[in-house]
Amino acid sequence: MGQPGQEIRSRGSRAPETRDRIVAATLQLLAKEGYGAITTRRIGEVAGVKYQLVHYYFASMEDLFIEAFRRGAEENLARLAEIAKGEASLRRFWKIHGDAGASKLMAEFVALAQRHPALRLEIASYARRFRNAQLDFARAALDRESISPEVIPPMVVLLLTTGLAQLEANDRLLGFTDGHDETRTWIENWLAANTTPVKE
Amino acid sequence: MGQPGQEIRSRGSRAPETRDRIVAATLQLLAKEGYGAITTRRIGEVAGVKYQLVHYYFASMEDLFIEAFRRGAEENLARLAEIAKGEASLRRFWKIHGDAGASKLMAEFVALAQRHPALRLEIASYARRFRNAQLDFARAALDRESISPEVIPPMVVLLLTTGLAQLEANDRLLGFTDGHDETRTWIENWLAANTTPVKE
Repeated sequence: MGQPGQEIRSRGSRAPETRDRIVAATLQLLAKEGYGAITTRRIGEVAGVKYQLVHYYFASMEDLFIEAFRRGAEENLARLAEIAKGEASLRRFWKIHGDAGASKLMAEFVALAQRHPALRLEIASYARRFRNAQLDFARAALDRESISPEVIPPMVVLLLTTGLAQLEANDRLLGFTDGHDETRTWIENWLAANTTPVKE
Repeated sequence: MGQPGQEIRSRGSRAPETRDRIVAATLQLLAKEGYGAITTRRIGEVAGVKYQLVHYYFASMEDLFIEAFRRGAEENLARLAEIAKGEASLRRFWKIHGDAGASKLMAEFVALAQRHPALRLEIASYARRFRNAQLDFARAALDRESISPEVIPPMVVLLLTTGLAQLEANDRLLGFTDGHDETRTWIENWLAANTTPVKE
């Protein structure tokens, strides 16, 4: 246990569709009802399988959480790599990172990570890879606009942008959006005045 | 139910110290173990009172959560008002808001709010008051530095600063701080170059 990237101890290998359904049901329950609602019984109900199969396929709940997390994480990394293949621009950077936010699902995983050390390591390892990929994107975008890292480093652009997106996502969970429009308009005006358009 | 600022339906008024201990135990459990660990039995144990007293003092768990939230919220607002009495400067603004972060406790309340509508309204109402108080502070600080709202509006400074603090707090929960120092150093250098010192 405990090393990011480790093999998940799997007890079953014959029926990937059942395993997939268990993972999908876990993600669905986490996103809709939060980690407090997660039991093997509820997972079985949502997956449409006997709850004992959860134990059959996953040696522990932590292993199940790690596999569920990893599935979403790999999708996110693949999507970012796909977008980064196009021409990097600050507008495109803003469009992607300004909308990413911190999903409710990610918040649930972070909460679960407080009592599952191997899950925490898995999330931290992913967060680092994701931040590095974002940083490459920010660096290429600033470079294309001839904005020197002396003026503003790519990391600062990245953390301010991601932080703002997370703040907006948190506010929205509360049904509260004061200042969001004003801030986005200011950023978009700044981009319009200080960057060159890119073919989308 | 459901109106922010409403009176909490209280069944007990004779023993404020017991009531206080129940509220303090709830805050302690939320901060340390998360909302998943909250039961009247655990609250009773931590508070050192019979668990039936939780029901005696609070008509519902939602009422207990609202009172617990309100206690921390009023303290935060009072602290901000106290600080704002001094001379507002951008450095002081950064010092306070850059360290505020989104506490684990606040994250737990937001998670609880997803299934307690009256708690959600209470948090949203507080978040608005807090943001308005912060905005007054940011406005006064920019004004003192003669930075025109045309250059950067107080709301933009506020959301970028708060978002960054929240992002750092989330990262720290994962044991991950990549880019924090670089970003803080850049902001502090910017402040040193663009603002006038203030007697602290």
